Amino acid sequence: MAGRRWLIAVSLFAAVSVFAQDRDADPLVTTALSNKRAYETLSYLTDEIGPRPSGSANAAAAVKWTTEQFRAWGIDVRTEKVVVPHWVRGDERARLVSHNNQKIVLTALGGSTATPPQGLTADVVEVNSYDELKQLGTKVKGKIVYYNNPMDMDLVHARHSFEAYSRAVVYRGTGASRAAEYGAVAALIRSVGSASLRTPHTGALRYDPKQPKIPAAAMTIEDAELVHRLIARGERVRMHVVLTPKTLPDVESANVIAEIRGTEHPEEIVLIGAHLDSWDLGTGAIDDGSGVAMVMETLRIIRESGLRPARTIRGVLFMNEENGLNGGRAYFANHKNEKHVAAIETDAGAAAPTGFNTTLKGEALYRVIDMTTILKRVNAHRFEYAAQTGADTSFLIESGVTGFGLVPDPLHYFDYHHTPADTLDKVDATLLAQDTAAITALAWVMANE
Amino acid sequence: MAGRRWLIAVSLFAAVSVFAQDRDADPLVTTALSNKRAYETLSYLTDEIGPRPSGSANAAAAVKWTTEQFRAWGIDVRTEKVVVPHWVRGDERARLVSHNNQKIVLTALGGSTATPPQGLTADVVEVNSYDELKQLGTKVKGKIVYYNNPMDMDLVHARHSFEAYSRAVVYRGTGASRAAEYGAVAALIRSVGSASLRTPHTGALRYDPKQPKIPAAAMTIEDAELVHRLIARGERVRMHVVLTPKTLPDVESANVIAEIRGTEHPEEIVLIGAHLDSWDLGTGAIDDGSGVAMVMETLRIIRESGLRPARTIRGVLFMNEENGLNGGRAYFANHKNEKHVAAIETDAGAAAPTGFNTTLKGEALYRVIDMTTILKRVNAHRFEYAAQTGADTSFLIESGVTGFGLVPDPLHYFDYHHTPADTLDKVDATLLAQDTAAITALAWVMANE
Repeated sequence: MAGRRWLIAVSLFAAVSVFAQDRDADPLVTTALSNKRAYETLSYLTDEIGPRPSGSANAAAAVKWTTEQFRAWGIDVRTEKVVVPHWVRGDERARLVSHNNQKIVLTALGGSTATPPQGLTADVVEVNSYDELKQLGTKVKGKIVYYNNPMDMDLVHARHSFEAYSRAVVYRGTGASRAAEYGAVAALIRSVGSASLRTPHTGALRYDPKQPKIPAAAMTIEDAELVHRLIARGERVRMHVVLTPKTLPDVESANVIAEIRGTEHPEEIVLIGAHLDSWDLGTGAIDDGSGVAMVMETLRIIRESGLRPARTIRGVLFMNEENGLNGGRAYFANHKNEKHVAAIETDAGAAAPTGFNTTLKGEALYRVIDMTTILKRVNAHRFEYAAQTGADTSFLIESGVTGFGLVPDPLHYFDYHHTPADTLDKVDATLLAQDTAAITALAWVMANE
Repeated sequence: MAGRRWLIAVSLFAAVSVFAQDRDADPLVTTALSNKRAYETLSYLTDEIGPRPSGSANAAAAVKWTTEQFRAWGIDVRTEKVVVPHWVRGDERARLVSHNNQKIVLTALGGSTATPPQGLTADVVEVNSYDELKQLGTKVKGKIVYYNNPMDMDLVHARHSFEAYSRAVVYRGTGASRAAEYGAVAALIRSVGSASLRTPHTGALRYDPKQPKIPAAAMTIEDAELVHRLIARGERVRMHVVLTPKTLPDVESANVIAEIRGTEHPEEIVLIGAHLDSWDLGTGAIDDGSGVAMVMETLRIIRESGLRPARTIRGVLFMNEENGLNGGRAYFANHKNEKHVAAIETDAGAAAPTGFNTTLKGEALYRVIDMTTILKRVNAHRFEYAAQTGADTSFLIESGVTGFGLVPDPLHYFDYHHTPADTLDKVDATLLAQDTAAITALAWVMANE
């Protein structure tokens, strides 16, 4: 009964509190839902600028254009230096010399070293785990190690796509160095995606400085399954692989930081963030052009409304999320002494919003739930605890800042993510507006709480 | 009432007749459903031999291997000469010089001529129809004509995929020459497919000998939509295109013809046919390796059963269906004077069987329906009239032979057809066995009717 009385008291408080927040958040959400400006922003980023890998001219163009846009909208904006790696994809092709020279479609993993220019030819050994690799040991010497690492599609269909991804992607990150430890000459993985029409899926690897750096690539699901079938039939599989990526000198790039200063506590910051860089294969529409569009449109809507938040709402367009996190790191180095009330990251696509992940638990979480009933308007009022709510904001989170991560329906996210098919047509303007409304609403509430 | 009496009489006759046929067809269907031999055959064709474009070494290997298989199974087999074109894909790439050099993913249409080795650069003009092209007339001179020809997805979802395909594919066949008539320097279409993950879809074009031959390619749906959006925004779109296919001298290839002679009317032939060649991008698993596997497995099952049909059942593996129909033409030239009771073609994939298209109508059709209730065992007892029931058998059909075409569920056929994603993983062994059973049952009934 004591518990029940307490609940009623909290609810009454919450109802009053929510009303106060909703009064201003409501017209902002209405504005977000009633236009397609976020989609127009995304269209420019993807159709006109195109892929935005770190260090590229396109990434620089994206920094320039987004800065100009904020300025044109009357929003305070600045850039802050971020030094980024500059890895450039080259030729990438492979064929099965053991099987009639059948073509193998693959793509180099981000950061991979090159094969000799004329390629390398070696037998392919398949393993399903690092345990299996360890058992084989030096038997993989001189060979290509193929990690057969399918995504768990049951998890994907149950909407735990990111968990399925995390499990499968382990081999992308560390597989090359683990194989190199036993003398392998190259490493291959199965593309970490939930759909394929012979579609390669890239992403960064991380070399262990103690091991030789060997080239690494992801075969499409079709090609990975072909190699698997041939090996399962007991056949010797020998592959010729050509990968000619280059790592050029580091490039000076930037985070773009725009903000609307708070009226009462300008020194308290509600950060909304997304990343401006993308992989090179597609145009980064879902990863993370749509997040950038949400952040930009949120600030534009607030600016246009004439409303001023009590705390500062700061939009950060991070550089180099995909292959280094140097933007997130640089932001933290520059701003760790400022008071961040919340860090809201959006880097999970632009499907229908469902809610947010958050580092909050218990009473603090329930309080936010009570304050944010406005999110029901866009079906984004589900909050779930997560230790990590975003990559660029992870440095802030680890230092104790409250984190939020937008959760669009994840069912199809990994159908497109990191592939050539991550293009504007995968984004629905109405759903993107709903996601934008969710970011706007949460940011506004957190800035006026 | 007269009609009703007549119906009862026919039904009684049919019941007796069906029983007689089913007695032998039934164990054949059981055998087809109880093994995965068709899938094993398909696996060899696709995984071990690979793509089988006309004139290629792989196509020759497929002729050799299928012939040897028939022989190993104790089935009479021979090859018959077919001279085929030998078109070889080269480099194919494009970028938008007007838009930050964005990559455009495309693939040359089969038979296309090449651009200059260094490529060509021209403005892109979009049209939705030949009427629009005609209205523009010589305004397209020196330009690249882009036919924006989407498949009608409402038709696809209503299972009229082949109709949707036929309508959209018109521009692939004749678009290049129609554009050349007005002075265009190249032609582009939208890939004629029902799904895309930046997936190009090839297929043959036909040049009008009266017009200059200009190179032609299909952009992926994503790239076609990008170009459409840019043009719709009123922007000038200028593209650099490199296509370096070659047409090499014609090659002597072959149809593979295997048969089980009839005991009572060996001179009467029930033909079952599929095509051995494929496009070069994928491994031709659904188009038409699965058809080849059905035909081969049907003959193997009958041979193994020890049963002998009253009429001859002849399997024909046609060469060069995709870019010439020279196999179908050669077969007709050699065999037009033989009596073909029926020509059953399977060239529509390996999804779940639903029935057959047929050139039969009225009483003749109802009679076949009554004779083939065995097809209910695999849900393939729906017959629909069609003027054309197959490409390779079209010459026979036009000369008056009764045609049948297997109809697997067409919903996803054009997701893969003519793309790099036409690979073994798209075929389900159980469904392929059901399709095989349908072919076996219909062939057996027609051969013993």
